[in-house]
This record gives sequence, structure tokens and C-alpha cells, in this order.
Amino acid sequence: MANVTADSIKAAVQAQRQSMQALFDQLRRDGLDEPGVSRDPYGDGEQRAHATVAAAADAMGLTLDRDDAVNLYMTLPGRDRHAPALVIGSHLDSVPHGGNFDGAAGVLAGLAAVAALKALNLTPACDIIVMGIRAEESVWFQVSYVGSRSSLGTLPDGALDVRRVDTGRTLADHIAACGGRPDALLARRRHFDPARLHAYLELHIEQAPSLVEAGRPVAVCSGIPGNFRYPDAWIEGSNDHVGLPKRFRRDAAIAGAEFALALDALWDEYEKRGIPMACTLGRFHTDVAQHGMTIVPGRFQFSLDVRAYDPDVLAALEERVAAIIAGIEQRRGVRFHLGPTARAAVGPADPAILAGLQAAAKAHGLDPLLIGSPASHDGAAFAAAGVPIGMIFVRNENGSHNPLEKMTIEDFLDGSTVLTQWIIDCIV
Amino acid sequence: MANVTADSIKAAVQAQRQSMQALFDQLRRDGLDEPGVSRDPYGDGEQRAHATVAAAADAMGLTLDRDDAVNLYMTLPGRDRHAPALVIGSHLDSVPHGGNFDGAAGVLAGLAAVAALKALNLTPACDIIVMGIRAEESVWFQVSYVGSRSSLGTLPDGALDVRRVDTGRTLADHIAACGGRPDALLARRRHFDPARLHAYLELHIEQAPSLVEAGRPVAVCSGIPGNFRYPDAWIEGSNDHVGLPKRFRRDAAIAGAEFALALDALWDEYEKRGIPMACTLGRFHTDVAQHGMTIVPGRFQFSLDVRAYDPDVLAALEERVAAIIAGIEQRRGVRFHLGPTARAAVGPADPAILAGLQAAAKAHGLDPLLIGSPASHDGAAFAAAGVPIGMIFVRNENGSHNPLEKMTIEDFLDGSTVLTQWIIDCIV
Repeated sequence: MANVTADSIKAAVQAQRQSMQALFDQLRRDGLDEPGVSRDPYGDGEQRAHATVAAAADAMGLTLDRDDAVNLYMTLPGRDRHAPALVIGSHLDSVPHGGNFDGAAGVLAGLAAVAALKALNLTPACDIIVMGIRAEESVWFQVSYVGSRSSLGTLPDGALDVRRVDTGRTLADHIAACGGRPDALLARRRHFDPARLHAYLELHIEQAPSLVEAGRPVAVCSGIPGNFRYPDAWIEGSNDHVGLPKRFRRDAAIAGAEFALALDALWDEYEKRGIPMACTLGRFHTDVAQHGMTIVPGRFQFSLDVRAYDPDVLAALEERVAAIIAGIEQRRGVRFHLGPTARAAVGPADPAILAGLQAAAKAHGLDPLLIGSPASHDGAAFAAAGVPIGMIFVRNENGSHNPLEKMTIEDFLDGSTVLTQWIIDCIV
Repeated sequence: MANVTADSIKAAVQAQRQSMQALFDQLRRDGLDEPGVSRDPYGDGEQRAHATVAAAADAMGLTLDRDDAVNLYMTLPGRDRHAPALVIGSHLDSVPHGGNFDGAAGVLAGLAAVAALKALNLTPACDIIVMGIRAEESVWFQVSYVGSRSSLGTLPDGALDVRRVDTGRTLADHIAACGGRPDALLARRRHFDPARLHAYLELHIEQAPSLVEAGRPVAVCSGIPGNFRYPDAWIEGSNDHVGLPKRFRRDAAIAGAEFALALDALWDEYEKRGIPMACTLGRFHTDVAQHGMTIVPGRFQFSLDVRAYDPDVLAALEERVAAIIAGIEQRRGVRFHLGPTARAAVGPADPAILAGLQAAAKAHGLDPLLIGSPASHDGAAFAAAGVPIGMIFVRNENGSHNPLEKMTIEDFLDGSTVLTQWIIDCIV
């Protein structure tokens, strides 16, 4: 551990305020698409963000590199260039009409930390690679972790053939248009050997208001949830006339309503037991091609996302969901068709990194919350590949994925200070 | 009462089997829109059905007339042309991809009865008007009883301005395109003076399987339900990220689910109390323009139809629904926007007609069920205008408003025999 005081570390990070604010402002202008910003992955919005960040890193004297998926790597060389590197990353794309901070804040935090190290004349033990990750937001290609999984050679089969929902062009086409090499990705050429990485750290705005509620600027993440999902489930009942007596009905919508309330009660039960989870019926609807005011719904469609932080909890929840469905099928004479099940593995934070981040925060008088990430993040792809991960959340009003995201530069600098302190404690 | 035996009446109706079967077959071909038939009101489907029925009535020697709403009147003159007339009617439109019998069976039963009278050389005391009614199915314009209320001058204010949900064109436009006079309807010019009508009778397929369950071909109707409806209601919550913890959510879909199950329980309560009613959430859905697997639904839309046979029961139910909504709004931080409320009055059957229809059925060895109509029918518009009404239901498998409607020609002829017997008992 380098012999540097917490005060000097804090001062070195605070000295980045103006350059970081300017960089956030430039990114906002680059992505402006009122209301909010749109940094469409492998499109003009994300390209402009990558160009802006690369130029800033170049001006800082970092070495630049890009891989087959056009992820951006900005490296501060370590004392041992062969030692497993530390990756500090986040994504530079956004949802359509999103905010300026979801993703970008984590890349800029990496740059702020590296700039602080340079200002303190500290050379880390290993390379520190700040990574600008491509295409994290699954709303565009409906595939998760495109950039991070490409860098690790774990992009799933078929992912290159999916089409961006707005352009209708394939991921392969989009990657090629940005100078990438989809053929190399298809052959599973990877940029990182996960065994040769020291750790992956990510700072991200909090996407829920827990920190706002608690009045604290930063949280340390206990893990990224895994999930099981039914993207295209439906309930088969019987389309009938509005006047049909109750004993004859097989109402698919009422069955859906009973399912939703049973999941709501299940979640309440888990909250009482202190076991974090979430479940969401994002699409939940009668058949728009057939439904009508005077028709008992015979078909009801839904998507379900159930997430938790422990694989055993997920397995237990999946059994409970199946039992709920069996009961409704029996009581209401309907049939559930769940369709394909998608799954994502739990990405627990590395215990040593978690403890180190908590200690780093406390060294600066910050009392960090410890929360499970409600959302998915690229760190889950690194965790799945066996890389130790850690995450810092920064207070953010108004949620994310909307133009009203609101992170103050003060809170950003507090989060970046925790990150820098951890690097100096553990890597320098 | 004419001196005609039940057997000869039955034989005269049975003699219509082939012509009626041919007419049903032609109507099916006219409306074919796989799966099922679509007779869109004031559109090509309904127009073809009117043309087919008018041609058949013309061939039978009935006089044809049409009103400002393009309802079709097919008249057998009575001995006293000035006596209040008997109307035997039903509608010739259908729901999209419906069956061949809902509506049309009642018009054809009127023609079968009139044909039987002619075959028996009987002239009724008053005119018998077989009425082919327009636009009964409210799924299209979301307004009830368009044709029948137009004939009575009771079409509600604003009805001519509503738009058909598929074409987007107003009812006035549609009526004009079929040769009607929306300006005259706006001025409340009416075809019927209700005080100058003897009665309104309608035969209709049963829309529930009560007759199938009971193993009987016909039922006599005790009354048509009234209703209140929210055709375009929605719940306002908050669109949020899938990871948002439960305590921060204002999930409009879960609020909708709670509403649906509360209505389901309310219905159970009324069934236990022996008070007939029904409620249906025909449209019940997240916002298809915004929803997604990873978004907590912030907007949930629904239609509600609540029906009962007693105006006091309807009023009490409307209060209960309001109380349910208030509770959900408070518990879940959402807001219900009910939009306009549509109402239809209860239409009880005339006791003398009801008794007469029961006697007519028993004269033919039929043991008719006595049931409240689960569905709404044009008779309710006549009842609301003070015209005595009666209805006959005919056994029908597989419900109505779907391509699988299944009425046998034998059951149709049994129902038509009851109708004919009643006419001869009471009108000839």
C-alpha cells in the first residue's frame, strides 16, 4: 500500500472536478436527443461518446486500444506489465431518450481515478485498463452484455444475427459499420483471458432511490442479481361472450390477475424474510388483436422477470412460481404456456473487494449503504467468466433510463474517491 | 285465437326448414372472414346480410321499408293496418370473426313465423313487422343498440360522432355511406312511436351453455340486464426500471390485477347472495406502445362491463366498484382514470308475454327454461321506450361471439314454433 493520506487522495480526485464536468457536458451535447440523450449502440450516438472519451484519455496520456467488438481500452501502464490487469469499466451507450449518467459515469470515474493517480505520481502494480464498453442496454438488440461478453469470448450463439429493434440491421452489420470484426467474434476470438485479470470494478449511478431515501452519497454493491425470465408467456382460456355466467368462464385475464397478485404476495413474503428479490410483469395484456369490451378474454400474454442474488433463492422461487401456476390452472380451468426460459447467473461481488471498498469509503468518512444491485450490469459477465468483481453506486435522483437522471458532481467525486482509495490501498 | 292445432302450426314451421337452412348458408357465405364471419355494422359485411335478407323477404311477398338509420322493415299486413304493430326483430351485424347465428337467427325466425302464417292462410290482427336491426354489437362503435334506439328516437347525444374502432370513421359517416340520414337522426326523427307498438319479440341463440347443460332446446327470458361500462379506463402509475425495489414502485399492472381479483370476489359474493350479475374486463393490458420485459408498467388500460337485472343492484355495484378503486389507489399509489361511463337500462320481460311464451312452448311439449338474459339485446331499447317485450332463447353450443357458435336447425325450428304459436295465440 502506498503511503498517501486519505486527504491528499481526496484532493487529487477533487482536482478533476472541472475536467470531469466538462466531459459530462460534452457527452450530453454529443448525445442530445430531446427529451434526454440517446447513445444508440453501434450507431451515431455511441460513436460520438466513444470519440469524446477517447480524445480525453489520449490527452491524459493513456494508451488507446480497441478490440473486435470496438470496445475502447484506455490503459495506464503498471510497474509489471505482465501482472494481471485491473479493469475499471462501464458502458457508453444509453437507452433511447435516457439520462447522461447511466453508464458514462463509470467510465469517467475510471478516468478520474487514473488522473488522480497520475497527479499523485503513483504507478500501480499492474496495468489499469479503463474500459468503454459497447452495447450494454438490452432494449436495442434485446441481448445483454454485448460488449463485455465479446471481450471475454462469451457472446451467446446467434447474438450477431439479432437485429436492432429500430434499424432492423443485424448486430454483425452494426459492429462492422463501426470498424469492428464480427467474423472474429463469430470465431470467439477474445480480448481478455479472464484468468489474466486481477479484477473488474464499476461505478454506476444507483437506479433506485435507496441512497436518496437514506441521505447518503455512495453504496457498495453486494452483487448483481441473476434472473429467470419468461419473455413470451401466455395463458390459454376461452374467448366467450360478456354475458357468460361465472361457472362457465375460463377467463385468461382473471387468471393473469391472480398470478400477478400471487407473485406480489410472494415478494412480500420474501421481504419479510429479509431475502432480496424482485419480480416484474413488464408486458401483461389481453390479446390486442382479439380483445374487446364485450368479450371474456381467452388469451392473456405476459413477460416475467424474477431476480435474486443467490442461485438457491432463484431455484426456490422458480419452484414457487410453478406451484402458483399449477394452482391457478386447476382453479380456473386455464393453461399457462411459459415459452422459452432465459436465465442469467448471479454475479456476487468478490468478498475481499467488497470489504476493501467499504474500508475505502470509511476512510473518507462516508458510511456506504450495502445494497444488492437491483439492475444487471456488465460486471455480471466478468463474474460469470470467473473475474472477481466489485461495484460502487452513486446517489441519483429520479431513477435511470429516463431524461431526469440526476447525479451531482459532488456525489460523483465521492464515488470516484472511494474507487481511487481502493486502487491505492490494493493495487499501488 | 285462431282455430289451428299445434300440430299444424308445427308442420307449417317445419316446412320452412330448407328455405331457412339455405338462408343461413347464404348469410355465412356473405360474411365469411375466416375464422368465422364478420358482419361489420354499416360496412360491407352487414350490407351483404341486409341485401340477402331483404331479397328473401321480397320473394315471400313482404313489403320492404328502411328508416333513417337504414334498419330494414319487412311487413306482413294485418287485418287492421292501424292497430299497433307487432315487431319481431334482431340484428344482422356480428362481432369480428363471430358466428353465423348471433343476431341473424332472430331475423330468420321472424321470417319463418310469417311464412308459416302465410302457409296456414292466417292474417294477423295487426301488422307484423320483421325488423333487421343495424349495429347492435357494441364492440365496433362502443355504443349499444344503435339501430334499435335510432328507430325509437332514443340514440344518445354524441353517438353519431363516435368512431368505429377499426375504420376510425364516425357513425354518422358510416350511416351516410349506407344510404342513411344522420342529420335526421340528429334531429331525433324516429320511425316508431313506441305507444303505437303492440310488442317487441326477439328470438336469439343462448350465449351461455345453460340449455346445453339442461338438455333442453328453448328458454324463455325473464329480462335483459342493464349495465354500466367504462369503455376507456386506465390506471396511472410510474414507468420504472425492472430493478426498482418494491417500496418505491407504483406498478399500474399490479394495481389492475388487484382490481380484477376484487371484482372477481365481488361477483362470488353476489352469487352466494343469489343476486344475478356479471362483470367483465374485456380489454385489460399494459401499454403496447411502451411496455417491455424490463420496465415496471406505469400505465394500464382496461374496459369494464358490469351488468345486472335490477337498477338498485346496479347502483349498489357501482358504489362497490368505486370503493374498491379508492382502496387500491391508497394502497398502491396509483390513480384510476375511468373516462366516460356508458349505461344501459334494465329491460324486464313483459309478464303477460312471458307467460304466453311459456304456454306456447308447453303446447308443443317443450319444457322451457326460464333464464335472465346474460347478454344485452335490442329488446332493452324497446323496453326502455315502454314497449312490452319478450324473448326466446335457443340452445347453442360453444357460446357466441366466436366462430364455433352451433345452433341446430331443429332447435331453431323449435324456437320458431314457439314464436309462431305465440303469434297465433295472441295476435291472429
